[in-house]
Amino acid sequence: MAAAIQQLWPTAKFGVGPSISNGFYYDVLFPDAIKFDDLATIERLMKKIRREKRNFIHKLWSIDESVNFFTQKKQTFKLELIELLRTRGATSIIEETGDTNVVLDTDTLTELSIYEIDDFVDLCRGPHVENSGQIGQFKLHRLAGAYWRGDERNIQMQRIYGLCYQSKEELLNEINRLEQIKLRDHRRVGKEMKLFHLSEKVGSGLPLWLPNGTAIRDELENLAKECERKAGYLRVSTPHITNEDLYYESGHLPYYKDDMYAPIEIDDKRYYLRPMNCPHHHHIYLSETRSYRDLPLRISEYGQVYRHEKSGSLSGIVRTRGFCQNDAHIYCSLQDAKNEFKQVMIMHACYYDMFGIDDFHMQLSLPDLSKLDKYINEPQKWLDALTIIREAMEESGLPYQEAKGEAAFYGPKIDFLIKTATGVEYTISTNQLDFLATQRFNLTYTGEDGEDHPVYVIHRAPLGSHERFIAFLTEHYGGKFPFWLAPIQLIIIPISDRHLDHARILKEQLQTQRVFNGSLGFRVELDDSSERMQKKIRSATLSKIPILLIIGDDEIKSGSCSIRLRDGTDFGAIKINEIIDVLRQSAEERSDAVFLNSWG
Amino acid sequence: MAAAIQQLWPTAKFGVGPSISNGFYYDVLFPDAIKFDDLATIERLMKKIRREKRNFIHKLWSIDESVNFFTQKKQTFKLELIELLRTRGATSIIEETGDTNVVLDTDTLTELSIYEIDDFVDLCRGPHVENSGQIGQFKLHRLAGAYWRGDERNIQMQRIYGLCYQSKEELLNEINRLEQIKLRDHRRVGKEMKLFHLSEKVGSGLPLWLPNGTAIRDELENLAKECERKAGYLRVSTPHITNEDLYYESGHLPYYKDDMYAPIEIDDKRYYLRPMNCPHHHHIYLSETRSYRDLPLRISEYGQVYRHEKSGSLSGIVRTRGFCQNDAHIYCSLQDAKNEFKQVMIMHACYYDMFGIDDFHMQLSLPDLSKLDKYINEPQKWLDALTIIREAMEESGLPYQEAKGEAAFYGPKIDFLIKTATGVEYTISTNQLDFLATQRFNLTYTGEDGEDHPVYVIHRAPLGSHERFIAFLTEHYGGKFPFWLAPIQLIIIPISDRHLDHARILKEQLQTQRVFNGSLGFRVELDDSSERMQKKIRSATLSKIPILLIIGDDEIKSGSCSIRLRDGTDFGAIKINEIIDVLRQSAEERSDAVFLNSWG
Repeated sequence: MAAAIQQLWPTAKFGVGPSISNGFYYDVLFPDAIKFDDLATIERLMKKIRREKRNFIHKLWSIDESVNFFTQKKQTFKLELIELLRTRGATSIIEETGDTNVVLDTDTLTELSIYEIDDFVDLCRGPHVENSGQIGQFKLHRLAGAYWRGDERNIQMQRIYGLCYQSKEELLNEINRLEQIKLRDHRRVGKEMKLFHLSEKVGSGLPLWLPNGTAIRDELENLAKECERKAGYLRVSTPHITNEDLYYESGHLPYYKDDMYAPIEIDDKRYYLRPMNCPHHHHIYLSETRSYRDLPLRISEYGQVYRHEKSGSLSGIVRTRGFCQNDAHIYCSLQDAKNEFKQVMIMHACYYDMFGIDDFHMQLSLPDLSKLDKYINEPQKWLDALTIIREAMEESGLPYQEAKGEAAFYGPKIDFLIKTATGVEYTISTNQLDFLATQRFNLTYTGEDGEDHPVYVIHRAPLGSHERFIAFLTEHYGGKFPFWLAPIQLIIIPISDRHLDHARILKEQLQTQRVFNGSLGFRVELDDSSERMQKKIRSATLSKIPILLIIGDDEIKSGSCSIRLRDGTDFGAIKINEIIDVLRQSAEERSDAVFLNSWG
Repeated sequence: MAAAIQQLWPTAKFGVGPSISNGFYYDVLFPDAIKFDDLATIERLMKKIRREKRNFIHKLWSIDESVNFFTQKKQTFKLELIELLRTRGATSIIEETGDTNVVLDTDTLTELSIYEIDDFVDLCRGPHVENSGQIGQFKLHRLAGAYWRGDERNIQMQRIYGLCYQSKEELLNEINRLEQIKLRDHRRVGKEMKLFHLSEKVGSGLPLWLPNGTAIRDELENLAKECERKAGYLRVSTPHITNEDLYYESGHLPYYKDDMYAPIEIDDKRYYLRPMNCPHHHHIYLSETRSYRDLPLRISEYGQVYRHEKSGSLSGIVRTRGFCQNDAHIYCSLQDAKNEFKQVMIMHACYYDMFGIDDFHMQLSLPDLSKLDKYINEPQKWLDALTIIREAMEESGLPYQEAKGEAAFYGPKIDFLIKTATGVEYTISTNQLDFLATQRFNLTYTGEDGEDHPVYVIHRAPLGSHERFIAFLTEHYGGKFPFWLAPIQLIIIPISDRHLDHARILKEQLQTQRVFNGSLGFRVELDDSSERMQKKIRSATLSKIPILLIIGDDEIKSGSCSIRLRDGTDFGAIKINEIIDVLRQSAEERSDAVFLNSWG
């Protein structure tokens, strides 16, 4: 690609151009910025070079020889790289893109590796194919801005991304996958489906949840309430700002200060936006004396927290400054800790099953016991906690890997990483075993023996935060949410105006159905526009509403509706009573399989 | 009382002692602080003075004469009062207690009104009864601290409160009412019933809602969701902190600044805890272009807000620093404003009926158009808005009074004042018509004519905030919440241990009942202690659980339970299926009348 660019723009200056997992990129400073359409021109020339099977020639040049050459060619960025290699043995390019496959030199150098193809000469560690005829299937697919050496104080260059695979099929798969990622991007789908709205006036990283997004939040909250109620949790509600004393007690101050916002002074006291819910829950534990009969005590809250994020790291609703966590804390004895931990694992598995998340892995994050300044220095407690977690994991039967040095400062934890249908990975939740809270907050209970015993605290949030989990689900489903979760579940399409009255009565009937899942009936729209039926069907399908109910003369006569799904499936006419029964069951069981099996 | 005090403590110094609605008080500085038990001694002497029918003699003294007398008596507070009367014609006592019946002089004076009874002489405008035998029935009922002239920088005196009525019956009624107020005080009941917990460590005015209080919050939220859904509201969720730009746009800055907390700096921008939800909702309105087909748009949110309150004005959960409002904003055309306003009034009436609130009044708060610096200077818009509200009120049929100068700066409003069973008054909510938001936020819609038209905004919060409304309800019901709202709805009492298994199965059955009111089943406890049945019944009754289900051999045999209410009503044995059906209906209709009528 660089050889082609040099032929087309002889004065272009080249920065770095590494290989990455699905191909490569190159940062280039063009005499005038190029446009996306120019990539096709470059690609054509690249294909010509490939057809011509030009050789790549490897040379080793001295530093002086290299400096002379690139000075003559006015390749100033290459000169900077050579200087880095000479003085530090590596180019130290700060890879802000997160590409982990970038190859960096690590030894100090006196000779430099050079590759030549025709009259294009580049500094490159290699290796290269022997000749350009061996190059696989490629596609230049993205043009972006990139600061020289990843530093925004430097000049901005243009980065051309290319895909490269051995076979056409692999390339097409990757192009398709990237297209899907773009189509499913929660920022795009969130806007199209009116889930949330971001406004600078309100503030960066502070989403306004629109009615459609709020419907999803409410459904998730109903789900969590139901599951947690069955599992014996008690719901609480606690304030979002707090006296600094609480954070000195918890240790968040000073250890967690960088992630917290600046304090607010009220009557000579300092108050903080809370970054976590745990200290509040601990004070609920402390609001009365607790005995072994009260344990395990499981306190849950969809709790709003605020953490400081740099504006550059904010992204849609994946990373926000305020978010609402599916949080809970379980207070239990040492003896019960294993079982409680296991029950949380099982709750995770149950949720994953419900959402069809089958690409996930779990990581047991261990302390690095050689660095005890980073972890509470209680070796025996660490070992006890690890034994509890390992046993709980074995009993749950869920697969996991271990990773050293990733534990919380107060105890080991399981981290959950899940992937969307397009392979994008999200860290959603953790399950943590905390043996420090009992010391800092004096969390104890009176045992059967009349003595005080320490409490173990499990921190858990299986559904993560509304913000990140809904971002994940949006991409996971590509906006095609299952029936129970869809912001609009049903759309009624009258074939002509004379079916409108009937359609309105049906809408009312569906809206007021008694669905026992915490919601208050189905979410229904009626297309009362004057468009033709086919256009109404197309528009409903595009808006990703799961089920279309079509009403015409025949349907009215037989007390039924014609049912179509957003994927085009046509179930034909079904009696309204049956429709309601099946859909209620589908919403209550939170599964599309109910209606697919009934009508498919 | 003052004459009696002087006899008992000759060196006591007297401050002010006005009459108040249910009697009187006097601020006194005793040589040593007295105790509550001393009030009985004072009372005994007062009764003796009453029996002796001593005359009250009225005199007019010159300023000099008065100064000489009170100097000799070392009544330094009286001398300060005389100085105030001489120089300013009034005593200007700052009545921080809020007693409105305190009589203050208003004319400049040269002669002072003096009353004498035996050797006790006091400065007093009067009038007095002729002799002490004419004094009614009294009771000294409260001893409190009070700063001289209501200023905390001054010396602290003791304030003795007395009740005084013509008849014994009236006095006893008032004593009983005050006792009820004390018993029903939400701070006391909230603690007994474990509704909420206040902790200085977390912060003043920032309650932690315990599981029992959260159950009430959730039920109220379910109720609001249901009513608002039926009325066509759409729920949203918006952040609690916001860029200062939003508040300059809304006008809260600088006009509302004193009620807001200090800002937090994030990346060189200032963010505020929000004191109101309206600006966020306006930006949801602005998130897409709106046409006449989208109106009325009703956006609702149980929205958390933060307002600055001095620590001295915080009281339980009536006045807190953070609270969660049953908020909504209705965006409509001028033509629809009257009907939308009326619908909000009807929603209020519906709630009041459900909660059995029959002692309330509504006040139409008007602008004082002579002070147009305090109100938006748009006389015609004010008149239009007033016409809309008056017509809406007439059509709703609800009684109201008008009050000048109480409007919001952006428009007139209806304020709702409701009373508990013991006559304590709460200002719970307002219904406001806002014609300013359309200008400040450019809130418009495209009419049928294709032109832009201004939007009228209705601000409403019928259930107020969770904090204040639950404080009100707690006192209104004295903690005896109706069945649907009670934190614990049912308690199962097995007569002996051999009925425990059966009781556990029944508990599970009740907990998982499908109640269609947004809740997830009944909230049930099981008394599995080893106490005797009568003690279990007494303890359940004291904890204010509405319904007791008693299980013994006979009940198990016949598939029934014996039902008792917390007031002692005994309904005898009723089949379990019938119990469930009736209680489900009671919870869904949110009315105790359902089971009272079925079983009573």
